[in-house]
Amino acid sequence: MTSENTGIDDLPIRDELRGKSPYGAPQLDVAVRLNTNENPYPLPEPLVERIAERVREAARTLNRYPDRDAVELRTALAAYLTRTAGHQVGREQVWAANGSNEVLQQLLQTFAGPGRLAIGFEPSYSMHGLIARGTGTGWISGPRREDFTIDTEAAAAAIAEHRPDVVFVTSPNNPTGTAVDAETVLALYDAAQAAKPSLVVVDEAYVEFSHRPSLLPLIEGRPHLVVSRTMSKAFGAAGLRLGYLAAHPAVVDAVQLVRLPYHLSAVTQATALAALEHTDTLLGYVEALKAERDRLVTELRAAGYEVTESDANFVQFGRFEDAHAVWRAILDKGVLVRDNGVPGRLRVTAGTPQENDAFLDAVRALKKEQSS
Amino acid sequence: MTSENTGIDDLPIRDELRGKSPYGAPQLDVAVRLNTNENPYPLPEPLVERIAERVREAARTLNRYPDRDAVELRTALAAYLTRTAGHQVGREQVWAANGSNEVLQQLLQTFAGPGRLAIGFEPSYSMHGLIARGTGTGWISGPRREDFTIDTEAAAAAIAEHRPDVVFVTSPNNPTGTAVDAETVLALYDAAQAAKPSLVVVDEAYVEFSHRPSLLPLIEGRPHLVVSRTMSKAFGAAGLRLGYLAAHPAVVDAVQLVRLPYHLSAVTQATALAALEHTDTLLGYVEALKAERDRLVTELRAAGYEVTESDANFVQFGRFEDAHAVWRAILDKGVLVRDNGVPGRLRVTAGTPQENDAFLDAVRALKKEQSS
Repeated sequence: MTSENTGIDDLPIRDELRGKSPYGAPQLDVAVRLNTNENPYPLPEPLVERIAERVREAARTLNRYPDRDAVELRTALAAYLTRTAGHQVGREQVWAANGSNEVLQQLLQTFAGPGRLAIGFEPSYSMHGLIARGTGTGWISGPRREDFTIDTEAAAAAIAEHRPDVVFVTSPNNPTGTAVDAETVLALYDAAQAAKPSLVVVDEAYVEFSHRPSLLPLIEGRPHLVVSRTMSKAFGAAGLRLGYLAAHPAVVDAVQLVRLPYHLSAVTQATALAALEHTDTLLGYVEALKAERDRLVTELRAAGYEVTESDANFVQFGRFEDAHAVWRAILDKGVLVRDNGVPGRLRVTAGTPQENDAFLDAVRALKKEQSS
Repeated sequence: MTSENTGIDDLPIRDELRGKSPYGAPQLDVAVRLNTNENPYPLPEPLVERIAERVREAARTLNRYPDRDAVELRTALAAYLTRTAGHQVGREQVWAANGSNEVLQQLLQTFAGPGRLAIGFEPSYSMHGLIARGTGTGWISGPRREDFTIDTEAAAAAIAEHRPDVVFVTSPNNPTGTAVDAETVLALYDAAQAAKPSLVVVDEAYVEFSHRPSLLPLIEGRPHLVVSRTMSKAFGAAGLRLGYLAAHPAVVDAVQLVRLPYHLSAVTQATALAALEHTDTLLGYVEALKAERDRLVTELRAAGYEVTESDANFVQFGRFEDAHAVWRAILDKGVLVRDNGVPGRLRVTAGTPQENDAFLDAVRALKKEQSS
């Protein structure tokens, strides 16, 4: 082996990583990017200024380590949850990390890992399985109905059979879009407690866009139930990488056993605090996006597409014999959507009205081309 | 179990986490904090302004995910290494993450993990063992001489015996302070290649303070040698959480198989880029700290303490029958140093001249109290 020709597979990496590719949507330079469920609205200029101000202040003590426990930020997140989820949440019930991916990684390191199992009901957020594998956790792909909703009985049976240590429920589900009702989550929680007991993680990354209320109040009296959240979507801050969870204080104590010390930088904490000051404005954008999401559903159906009910800022549509070919055809019309690998379906993010018009024009034109 | 009384140990956490405490130095409100090897010099005001400016710009597109590959930042880090380490480093040889802890975690997830082993020569940076455990990697505590230098023969024998997948060499070593020479690293690299082959990680978090040159040029032609770095110390940016590595491009490709997508926020990338623009000023502070470090060594010896040679921004001193009692006695005089658990020794960070004077006054007074 000469050094110049060394590739990944010449290195002593773990066997299960051999032949794998890094996770990530293609990053293409296209005018209309509706592929990663980003919020299309840039932060308002007063918030941009407030971020600069807060970061300037934080930079003056940047030679010191950040607040390891992120107390001010967790207090602000707790206040946001209390206000919006209809449930009193204290700072000691909230934990934050670099994106909800890191929150989930810390949960798996604490409650799963080598020799343990996690389950998700697929198709769902594919990072659940990838982070499980990255933490040495075995992964079980649980079932979903043809219409992409969770079949409570079948899901509970899978939990009873596999006795996983961690159960993921994504609500609204990504990439399919539909929210899960409280009865289903409670049934799965009971099944998980009877089987093990195991930790149930409700991933609410998109909940602010939902027709249904947050499942957050269910954490009351259920110390094995965790709700994870993110500022990437509703707060329009995908670039910030700020995820958080709400749960029993003992869960927050437990993840601190595995978190890397000072994991959350002072600039991240300062920027998140600034964004939380502007919650009202940002939630206004969420309302606009919900209306656009509903318009996408209506117009896609009117154009003859099959559309999955959506509680998120994206819409799954189909059906296609060859979804990837359609993905490519839409891209050729200047609009980037996402092929998540769900057979016969694609996913489009709700963008600005102009972006959505461009998308709708593209898919209407495709229909015409097909029928001509 | 009532929900109110639930504690960590009532949760279904991993067995090896039971009874453990979160890692971290005590965060005490003391006037002179010389306990976590922070750089005592706040960033200069022009740099603070440049950070605010760069972050303001990044905030304008914060609704979008950050550059997943951090290309601009890795290019700037490669330029810094090329300039300061006497070795041409390309962007494709550099990877960055949230603190060197996350860099090391990614390396262990890729090259170690469940069923694999890592070794360090202790006492050394205790996070190496903790991150190993957090990634399911077995941990071997390798030997060190009485004077805290590495006994190459004994270390190579430990590598041959245990056949670890990852070998950590910390240079300068933390908490003891002494740098490792190239011959030792090369001998351990050869031993590691003969045994497995395994990845050798040279942790150079403090190298800018060293009397010896960086070991970075050793990566040439050695695809299993990695050098890890941080902006926490020499760049005075502990609050930023920016660690990085230099290695063969295949290693950089490999860690991308386990990195969480978009792990490095746009504000972190913007802040780090601003700091790199001010390298010359920040390296000026490093020179001042090296002089202060040397003064601490001289003055501690003059006061009758035993001092370990230091190439870092801290000094290990002793000996004490009860190091923790001395730690407390110094704290009672208003100065916070670190008890890293090395028997009979304490560690003091080089602070500003005034902070170091306060520390030296405290330890000189202690000597007088003992002899009176």
